[in-house]
Amino acid sequence: MAITLNKKPTTGMKDILPEEMQIRDYVIGVIKDTYGKFGFTSIETPAVEAIGNLNCKAGGDNEKLIFKILKRGEKLNVADATTEDEVVDGGLRYDLTVPLVRFYSNNSAVLPNPFKALQMGNVWRADRPQRGRYRQFMQCDIDILGEASNLAEIELILATTTTLTKLEFRNFQIRINDRRILKAMAAYAGFNEEDYDSVFITLDKMDKIGIEGVKEELVGNGFDAAVCDKYLELFTKVNEASNGVNFIADSLKDYLDKEVMDSFKEIIAVVEACKADSFELVFDPTLVRGMSYYTGTIFEIAMPEFGGSCGGGGRYDTMVGKFTGKDVPACGFSIGFERIVLLLMERGFKVPTRPKNVCYLVEKGVAGDELAKIMKQAEEERAKGMQVLVTRMNKNKKFQKEQLNKEGYEDFVEFYKEALKF
Amino acid sequence: MAITLNKKPTTGMKDILPEEMQIRDYVIGVIKDTYGKFGFTSIETPAVEAIGNLNCKAGGDNEKLIFKILKRGEKLNVADATTEDEVVDGGLRYDLTVPLVRFYSNNSAVLPNPFKALQMGNVWRADRPQRGRYRQFMQCDIDILGEASNLAEIELILATTTTLTKLEFRNFQIRINDRRILKAMAAYAGFNEEDYDSVFITLDKMDKIGIEGVKEELVGNGFDAAVCDKYLELFTKVNEASNGVNFIADSLKDYLDKEVMDSFKEIIAVVEACKADSFELVFDPTLVRGMSYYTGTIFEIAMPEFGGSCGGGGRYDTMVGKFTGKDVPACGFSIGFERIVLLLMERGFKVPTRPKNVCYLVEKGVAGDELAKIMKQAEEERAKGMQVLVTRMNKNKKFQKEQLNKEGYEDFVEFYKEALKF
Repeated sequence: MAITLNKKPTTGMKDILPEEMQIRDYVIGVIKDTYGKFGFTSIETPAVEAIGNLNCKAGGDNEKLIFKILKRGEKLNVADATTEDEVVDGGLRYDLTVPLVRFYSNNSAVLPNPFKALQMGNVWRADRPQRGRYRQFMQCDIDILGEASNLAEIELILATTTTLTKLEFRNFQIRINDRRILKAMAAYAGFNEEDYDSVFITLDKMDKIGIEGVKEELVGNGFDAAVCDKYLELFTKVNEASNGVNFIADSLKDYLDKEVMDSFKEIIAVVEACKADSFELVFDPTLVRGMSYYTGTIFEIAMPEFGGSCGGGGRYDTMVGKFTGKDVPACGFSIGFERIVLLLMERGFKVPTRPKNVCYLVEKGVAGDELAKIMKQAEEERAKGMQVLVTRMNKNKKFQKEQLNKEGYEDFVEFYKEALKF
Repeated sequence: MAITLNKKPTTGMKDILPEEMQIRDYVIGVIKDTYGKFGFTSIETPAVEAIGNLNCKAGGDNEKLIFKILKRGEKLNVADATTEDEVVDGGLRYDLTVPLVRFYSNNSAVLPNPFKALQMGNVWRADRPQRGRYRQFMQCDIDILGEASNLAEIELILATTTTLTKLEFRNFQIRINDRRILKAMAAYAGFNEEDYDSVFITLDKMDKIGIEGVKEELVGNGFDAAVCDKYLELFTKVNEASNGVNFIADSLKDYLDKEVMDSFKEIIAVVEACKADSFELVFDPTLVRGMSYYTGTIFEIAMPEFGGSCGGGGRYDTMVGKFTGKDVPACGFSIGFERIVLLLMERGFKVPTRPKNVCYLVEKGVAGDELAKIMKQAEEERAKGMQVLVTRMNKNKKFQKEQLNKEGYEDFVEFYKEALKF
């Protein structure tokens, strides 16, 4: 046998040594355990997707970074081919969102509704190799499909922050905004709707170039200086206001549905009531999140130890519909698994050495303080080791319970609006 | 956005639903926990390997089944290319052995010696799609590199059978043979060395076509009938002998080093002394194992519930050397993860709801009964929840302990030949 072996991993990818694996396995265990207590279930999709699915425009710039897979057998004819498309039929997934939506479209008939999914798996991007960034890396996505109410946002934030707290992270922030607030602010200032994307790309640089830098770039891009001033004044005033959310709600009341703002306030209030001391929930009107598919709430994890985000997500209510023709409400969080592992490694983290479950059925009208109390109660039970699934009560409660029975839930606690005057 | 999504997974691959994932995660947990108690550490290698590594001839027929990855950017010129090789630079791994050997070659300087590796990861093979076999599937490999003695075989068999027992498998068999016994039997009968591979391919069909079928095929392949008779008579006599191993040892004494047979007997004796009641260890002189890289002991898991093997492995002492120029003793077991999950699913398996470690340093001369007692003691301690690493004592014991300290071992028990007259 000739010596043909290249001892190094393929360009931009890495071997994972036992020491790092121990931390990775621990983090995976904490994630699976913690989200499990919230009723999330693990799923897995293949690493390879049909090339048409990967090029569906939901992947943004990542579609330029696909590792493409050659056709095989009779379907392949390299000699006569003139373009890539002729020789390729698949590719390695670049994220877990496109596969999740395909998975949900394929299997929704046999999945619980709402469906709370936990996915951990590798993704591949042919990025230029650089220190600390690899072409194969683990993503960890949690998504709730089929939940239209802000229960999805609340649970995602609580489960994610509980996970990070268990991993001994402290003093981090969850920054929250809403794409509809972003748009209303731009409308209030007088930008045209077709310019919003361009405006937001500039706004997204606020933490790097500051408010003066943003103004300079906007004006440089040809926007009216008075409009820009009105726009940026809003951000300054939010910062100065004693309650930024209330200030924005008042300022934008002619540009934004009251329900949107009320729901946004509720997310903040409920999370504040249940949350651990390990993090702050912060309204950040400059938060943009790049992906075009977000339709509502957006959020991001900011770690003081790490310059930049350690994960984020948001609501994307129209993405399933774009694939299947029928919209399904959806909200998800992607945790920066590799960054978390890196931070734990850097701080010399040593890996240290669930019982009954219950389902809370919450009537549709239950909201605000009542909802907060329920979530807090669930948190307390989880802290004692219980698995607690909190879900909205369906009209056909009997059928819903039968389905939940099949998922393993036998004990139910029902919360009705009328009975909840605390 | 146009509707381009193909809801189905890519041909031959599958979506894994929560119910199956729960069993998979459980099996992964038991495997990691059980091998962990034996001192195996997890590693991971990238899914993608350089195409030259995958085509190194160590992959056998699997090399025909590679999912190949297209070059990217300026390196790719489809229009001018006439062959596959010109447009491809990588491929998805088809097993974990080639990546392990590359990993070991790349990282051996910072790895413990011997290095006890646990790898769990997906592999990809573009097999013809068929029911129950998928083009992406999980493999679970455990390997010991750098251990020349049969301690490697013993530990691999014990750790693997403990794992299967914890997963509630009963009445299974570990079939064991040695490539050198196979060869000696062929030599004894009078086959020429260059014909061994052909003879073994036929022998491997014994359980399907029976001894008469094997004879017919051998003669049909042009081998001398008298040689074939002498060969097959050996197999008949082994079956009839009260102790097949002793019979073979006597019959082959002019064709096989005594040390090979003694070591083989010792593996059997030690495993018999330590083993659980859940399985039988069976000498099977018809066991061939397809891969050409095996150099010594070979073994296979046979499950009564499953027609065929549920895993197997063996010693491959020259494979690292073929890549690096320097041989390293190596022995490994590959567990049929997907088959185990399938069997658990079929029987309606429900997923049910480590403390201090110690290192046993065993002097080189310790063998036979003495070794069996040590292994049994280790088993008992593991059953109580301990992590017990059993390893051969090096000449420079102080340095060895320092290295083991770095891996987290602080307590040592030393076993010397002279002190072990039980």
